[in-house]
Amino acid sequence: MCWRQLESNEGFRPVHPPGTRDAWKPRGSQRHLRGLAPGTVVVTDKAVDYSFLAQFEQVVLGKVVTRSTELDEEVANELLQCSSELQNFPTVIGNTLCTHDFYEGQGRLDGALCSFSHEDKLEYLRKAYEAGVRNIEMESSVFAAMCRICGLKAAVVCVALLDRFEGDQITSSHDVLVEYQQRPQVLVSHFIKKRLGRAV
Amino acid sequence: MCWRQLESNEGFRPVHPPGTRDAWKPRGSQRHLRGLAPGTVVVTDKAVDYSFLAQFEQVVLGKVVTRSTELDEEVANELLQCSSELQNFPTVIGNTLCTHDFYEGQGRLDGALCSFSHEDKLEYLRKAYEAGVRNIEMESSVFAAMCRICGLKAAVVCVALLDRFEGDQITSSHDVLVEYQQRPQVLVSHFIKKRLGRAV
Repeated sequence: MCWRQLESNEGFRPVHPPGTRDAWKPRGSQRHLRGLAPGTVVVTDKAVDYSFLAQFEQVVLGKVVTRSTELDEEVANELLQCSSELQNFPTVIGNTLCTHDFYEGQGRLDGALCSFSHEDKLEYLRKAYEAGVRNIEMESSVFAAMCRICGLKAAVVCVALLDRFEGDQITSSHDVLVEYQQRPQVLVSHFIKKRLGRAV
Repeated sequence: MCWRQLESNEGFRPVHPPGTRDAWKPRGSQRHLRGLAPGTVVVTDKAVDYSFLAQFEQVVLGKVVTRSTELDEEVANELLQCSSELQNFPTVIGNTLCTHDFYEGQGRLDGALCSFSHEDKLEYLRKAYEAGVRNIEMESSVFAAMCRICGLKAAVVCVALLDRFEGDQITSSHDVLVEYQQRPQVLVSHFIKKRLGRAV
């Protein structure tokens, strides 16, 4: 079994009810979406590309080969169960958007290059949200694709550091971020101990 | 002006005459190509993708935007001139193939995944060679594209660590590799000193 724990990424949180996936709440004439609360752990359902498809394009000798990035559903559900046993932090299952870069691919407005508006950014994040995305990072697709093609059960566990509907920069303190980053490790450690029959 | 100096990569060397680009020598019924001699410095002409096109595909809000990866020709020629002044190591100008990974994208047979034959590999390397590729790495495209779109003159200087027509693994000793890796820095240092009017 393979693990990938992400240290810094972003998430999307449904507004109401807590823990419900794909939920959003209309506010006035506009739908107002919120991402996940910082510190929420996200167990990845599928690692999706910029079109929200569960695939990774691998170039082999100049030809593009498309590989599935679906992860092991059973392991993901077991991790969610572990989280409910720990009760230390909120955990959800959702898709992870795996981008090629930190700025333009993730709709950031604060990079060296930015050719789109705040509204364009929110529209893309909204589409991602509606496609089940609750988390953004840059590694899960190749990890998922390689594990799957090798026949290895795999899981990706991340922690959300900021709500991308609210901004682009991480403003939490160092100590808070350190604690957030330990959460996926705490969860996976519990899972491993449980599998070994040593959970207390 | 921007620089990128690569520490580990691979190159292609024409067989005859030395220093001639796009040259290859028939041997019997087969064309036999050789890559660059290890230690050869390669000043990049164009950073090309897996199809040998001088472009980089950047995803912006879910849409693929194609950007040019052409580098500054004048700076490249000036670097080649600097190399001839130093006379410390062989230097060529050639295209750099920028891949997404170290194994399948570069036609390696020794990775965890390999779905092609030795002949398939050589055929791809031959096509790359005929497209002017003398060097393979994984960073130059995004560097070239970003510099170009920002209006910055840029150059990429690499050193070849092995001849990919001969194998996939780097077998030179640590000391030899350390010396190779200093070559691009020596060349760029000379260029900078010359520009500042301090070359000796």
